[in-house]
Amino acid sequence: MKFLHTSDWHLGRQFHNVSLLEDQKDVLRQMMEYISENPVDALIIAGDIYDRSVPPTAAIELMNKTVNYICGELKTPIILIPGNHDGAKRLGFGAEQMRDSGLHIISTFEEMMSPVVIETKQAGKVAFYGMPYNDPELVRYHFSEPVTTHDQAHQFLASKLTSQFEPGHKNVLLSHCYMDGAIESDSERPLSIGGSDRVSHEHFKAFDYVALGHLHQPQKKGEDYIRYSGSLMKYSFSEQHQKKGMTLVELDSNGFNSATHIDLTAPHQMRIIEDELDNILTMGKTDANSHDYLLVRLTDKHAILDPMEKLRKVYPNVLHIEKPGMLIGIEQTLGKARLARGEIDMFNDFFLEAQQTQLSKEQSETISNVIKELTQEHKE
Amino acid sequence: MKFLHTSDWHLGRQFHNVSLLEDQKDVLRQMMEYISENPVDALIIAGDIYDRSVPPTAAIELMNKTVNYICGELKTPIILIPGNHDGAKRLGFGAEQMRDSGLHIISTFEEMMSPVVIETKQAGKVAFYGMPYNDPELVRYHFSEPVTTHDQAHQFLASKLTSQFEPGHKNVLLSHCYMDGAIESDSERPLSIGGSDRVSHEHFKAFDYVALGHLHQPQKKGEDYIRYSGSLMKYSFSEQHQKKGMTLVELDSNGFNSATHIDLTAPHQMRIIEDELDNILTMGKTDANSHDYLLVRLTDKHAILDPMEKLRKVYPNVLHIEKPGMLIGIEQTLGKARLARGEIDMFNDFFLEAQQTQLSKEQSETISNVIKELTQEHKE
Repeated sequence: MKFLHTSDWHLGRQFHNVSLLEDQKDVLRQMMEYISENPVDALIIAGDIYDRSVPPTAAIELMNKTVNYICGELKTPIILIPGNHDGAKRLGFGAEQMRDSGLHIISTFEEMMSPVVIETKQAGKVAFYGMPYNDPELVRYHFSEPVTTHDQAHQFLASKLTSQFEPGHKNVLLSHCYMDGAIESDSERPLSIGGSDRVSHEHFKAFDYVALGHLHQPQKKGEDYIRYSGSLMKYSFSEQHQKKGMTLVELDSNGFNSATHIDLTAPHQMRIIEDELDNILTMGKTDANSHDYLLVRLTDKHAILDPMEKLRKVYPNVLHIEKPGMLIGIEQTLGKARLARGEIDMFNDFFLEAQQTQLSKEQSETISNVIKELTQEHKE
Repeated sequence: MKFLHTSDWHLGRQFHNVSLLEDQKDVLRQMMEYISENPVDALIIAGDIYDRSVPPTAAIELMNKTVNYICGELKTPIILIPGNHDGAKRLGFGAEQMRDSGLHIISTFEEMMSPVVIETKQAGKVAFYGMPYNDPELVRYHFSEPVTTHDQAHQFLASKLTSQFEPGHKNVLLSHCYMDGAIESDSERPLSIGGSDRVSHEHFKAFDYVALGHLHQPQKKGEDYIRYSGSLMKYSFSEQHQKKGMTLVELDSNGFNSATHIDLTAPHQMRIIEDELDNILTMGKTDANSHDYLLVRLTDKHAILDPMEKLRKVYPNVLHIEKPGMLIGIEQTLGKARLARGEIDMFNDFFLEAQQTQLSKEQSETISNVIKELTQEHKE
């Protein structure tokens, strides 16, 4: 039997004040096409369906259309859990009413105890257990168990599930957590501070497959069958070289058989370009992917008047500019960048570019005095 | 066949900064008990399920539990439309997936065209058409029809529905609108300004029953079978004498048979008490309903120090105090209240109450000068 493992859709996410909804719509279209052409027994979403507990209406509409097509038209069941970005109770409304239609939203610990069982020739009965995103406080309160860390909470919940495994069933777990030792990206929201959010993969070894969500880079942890599918698309520039998409999982009569990455490609990729302005402007003219979302690192050593306006003429979706050429390293202790050039030099560059001529001696003295005055005021 | 017509639940509503959720929970408990003891073929909610388009989580949970019990345990279908307070798209998520379980959320014009058909021995096939709350702009945009008023919009939508009536079917309409000539209350949010929100009942005469929502007072309009059930409970003090609850509707082979009001009573009633403070304090000591939500109108002619504190000792849920005894009428043009007594008289009252003695001549002069100074400053 085959199912698709996905996670971290983050529908409705904004990136540098740009809505990613059109990109998300396109990626979901690719997903629907894939399932239409390559039928699977289930689609899994291991948390963070939405980017916020109160998602924008347009994100809800997109999710609704996707669900209507996959469950309604393709008759493919969807099994999902809320992640740390989702509002579990908001997402869970009507879960009981939706179940028979093939949409399984597992948002409470009660629902966690009743797996979704799918029967196939190849793997017999496969029980999908959804562990909704949780923290130690929630588990301590709900079960009156003295757990104080994410690790203990997940160990406790996993043992509750494994103790009720049915003989002969294959068992799949959905969980939204941070596996100890796994690799994080820049676009995840920390679950807690200082490493206390880490969970050992050992607790999950009894399952035939563990479909993880939270970390945005596809990866396995500890075992071949304990995996993050990674996010639907890139959500930070530092993910520029990560593969994004879905994990196609195959189970057979022995349990886990294989996991294969299936690419999904957002129309706008997120990437970083580092060069001098003139080189970037030249390159942009022939760049087939000039509509990508860009972080531009200008290596020029002189000040440039309104570089964003210039860049956007060839790369319309430059979202952020950094100027490493203008910095002498980074002051590590303070995390502050110090300007390599003085204010007067900077103003000279600006004046040259704006007026196409150098400052006269008189102008130079005047601006020098103004800057001194301002600097003095600032210090006072 | 019998069904219950309700509307304007407004789950999650606040009243003078007090959450009404516990009252709503109790009223819904009474509703569930009623249905459990007196089975009906459907429960209708004619809009304003929630008080806001983004309802608080606790309101969603209460709705979820209510739906689980009525649809899940009692197997009674629920048919509902969004009102002007609801977010139609937010409320409509998963509607397609819920339908088979008996929860029918009709939140789009497409869904409006497919009635929920319930068949009974007494009345044959009954088609329930839900007209989601709409305004002329929405209808004009969606259907490219040149409607400019609520009346035209509803006339157009009603004619679309009546034109597809099936022969032999009984037809019920759910609509959330303001019937021309009907009585409004203080707790409805206007649909538009200046009377352009009124809809003629004539457009709806072809239906066998019209289950209306929006106006909070139970009433019929034009025909016995065109009715507002009124809100679930009182939502303003001026509704103190209104009956609140549900309308039990009976249809038979001839169509409309009867409509009966079924009382639902919130644990805290909303009411107005008007008297002098001392009388109210005496009455409160033996008032069996001293926990009601109260608007107190003090008729005392002198200033009283902290009347709220005194009142709440006997009536803990006084939510608002008015002091008509302290006012000389209302300046009609400005809508402003003018104090009957001067500042010095007021201070005398205050001092007497706080210190149990009159102002000395010296004190009286001092305060008089202070007040003069302040009044002068204020004028400048």
